[in-house]
Amino acid sequence: MAEPIRIGILGYGNLGRGVECAVRQNPDMKLAAVFTRRAPESLSIFTPDVPVYHASEAPAHKDEIDVLILCGGSATDLPVQTPDMAQYFNVVDSFDTHAKIPQHFAAVDAAAKAAGTVALISCGWDPGMFSLNRVYASAVLPAGQDYTFWGKGVSQGHSDAIRRIEGVADARQYTIPVDAALEAVRTGDCPQLTTRQKHTRECFVVLKDGADAARVENEIKTMPNYFADYDTTVHFISMEELKRDHSGIPHGGFVIRTGKTGWNNEHNNVIEYSLKLDSNPEFTSSVIVAYARAVARMAAAGQSGCKTVLDVPPALLCAQDPAWLREHML
Amino acid sequence: MAEPIRIGILGYGNLGRGVECAVRQNPDMKLAAVFTRRAPESLSIFTPDVPVYHASEAPAHKDEIDVLILCGGSATDLPVQTPDMAQYFNVVDSFDTHAKIPQHFAAVDAAAKAAGTVALISCGWDPGMFSLNRVYASAVLPAGQDYTFWGKGVSQGHSDAIRRIEGVADARQYTIPVDAALEAVRTGDCPQLTTRQKHTRECFVVLKDGADAARVENEIKTMPNYFADYDTTVHFISMEELKRDHSGIPHGGFVIRTGKTGWNNEHNNVIEYSLKLDSNPEFTSSVIVAYARAVARMAAAGQSGCKTVLDVPPALLCAQDPAWLREHML
Repeated sequence: MAEPIRIGILGYGNLGRGVECAVRQNPDMKLAAVFTRRAPESLSIFTPDVPVYHASEAPAHKDEIDVLILCGGSATDLPVQTPDMAQYFNVVDSFDTHAKIPQHFAAVDAAAKAAGTVALISCGWDPGMFSLNRVYASAVLPAGQDYTFWGKGVSQGHSDAIRRIEGVADARQYTIPVDAALEAVRTGDCPQLTTRQKHTRECFVVLKDGADAARVENEIKTMPNYFADYDTTVHFISMEELKRDHSGIPHGGFVIRTGKTGWNNEHNNVIEYSLKLDSNPEFTSSVIVAYARAVARMAAAGQSGCKTVLDVPPALLCAQDPAWLREHML
Repeated sequence: MAEPIRIGILGYGNLGRGVECAVRQNPDMKLAAVFTRRAPESLSIFTPDVPVYHASEAPAHKDEIDVLILCGGSATDLPVQTPDMAQYFNVVDSFDTHAKIPQHFAAVDAAAKAAGTVALISCGWDPGMFSLNRVYASAVLPAGQDYTFWGKGVSQGHSDAIRRIEGVADARQYTIPVDAALEAVRTGDCPQLTTRQKHTRECFVVLKDGADAARVENEIKTMPNYFADYDTTVHFISMEELKRDHSGIPHGGFVIRTGKTGWNNEHNNVIEYSLKLDSNPEFTSSVIVAYARAVARMAAAGQSGCKTVLDVPPALLCAQDPAWLREHML
């Protein structure tokens, strides 16, 4: 058996821990090091006998790591970290600010090409597996339309927005696709759907002592961008109920494309991809780790520069060799 | 705009006509020629001003075609045609005898490498889009299991088997996935399912005058391999009803993988891909035509040899350029 692929993790939050768990499930990989901006000695990781270093020390360990997985946030961490770390390492990130992908790609591509490394950005499930499905489905059914729905799942951004309201002790927000909208899409009639028609938002809110529930509910439901364009339901619950019933981080969603075939577009066809995830960060990490394998192989083959999931042949994701895949999976 | 990709079709049955329809939907392609084993003058094709030649003349037209799409059958046509035509053309076929893919790959790879052509085999939806989804899902969730269900759809092979029974004038057979089995798979419990538990078979049969319905029904239900292992329903209908209600060729199915994540595999995740197709051959053709674009690009980049869908970066399937895809689809 070949030497295992040595994985490094930069940033040990939910995503970093998810990467650690995913590496454990892949016998052709091993966790080589964790890098953190916190005091390294304050970190307790799952895997025994793996060193934890300060993030600033990462470049000194570049020869010990085949692929460094960047587990920071898209708002401020990755725009700096990914081009920086691509100078030293093959990297994978989960940059998910869709509108800024082109500029992130350009910055990372320049750094990776200069260094001769491979840097795969925007990996996970959206962007990631959902992007793949949008691309495959639109290539196969050009006379059609695709739709993406998210949920049922926890939106961290919307939960945070509720927590910033005065009088709120804690909150959890679920994004829920509307069944009637899903059904309308599946008919193949290519409906035009408003924001309100596609998703609803359900909020579980713990109030601080003496807070005015009616005011909080009104502030939530009228909050621009976050809630005003949606049908929003607000439930006030106790902190005990929140911890008991809403401590998970589930998510999921649907990519559906319908398209016509036939000389006169007389036939309808529906392609549907869906995810139902008990753990959003663990699934995201699992996707990232599969792509880390592909990155190690692309780097070993002499490639360099910035890549996305759209550039990677599927066979490169699998531990098994191509002949085995043709025999068993094709 | 670049010169359109010139597509040739070899074999003008349901699949060949589907390719013709799909090429029409892709403005970066044009149909250059159709080759047939019938008398060329007997063929009437949809597209005006496209020449129809005898199949034996194909090699003489190799400089007029960028990708030749082979629309013959897997049993006897493609094992001969694909290696033969790969000597002259970049080709795509839909070879779907899963068990014989390795030997078909080897024969086609030798011919294509010797000729410097690109030959993509086993394209369509299963093998094809379903294979992709099995591979992606198993790479992402290694601690899991995948399941493939087919239907509801017409099985040509099973319909033919019924037609060979004495006293049968015509027949149509539908393969139907069992809802309870789908639901059991989605729970993540990785059930062991028998053939009988996964699919049922529904048959619509037109009897010849004087045929014994009870005997025909018994012969169907006890036919080894085809029906004996399934719960099979037989309906006797008139030829008019068959033509009115069962003349389409719908198909579809599901690829579902469930897998665990977390340090102790404590979380369940479900990936589900499904197709619901009004026209099996037209959808198959649509997949093939998208991969013909990728084949033209791989050949232009100097690649050669046999490929499958597992070897093709998704971006190569799309008419749009990679920067556009990153901006709009990722």
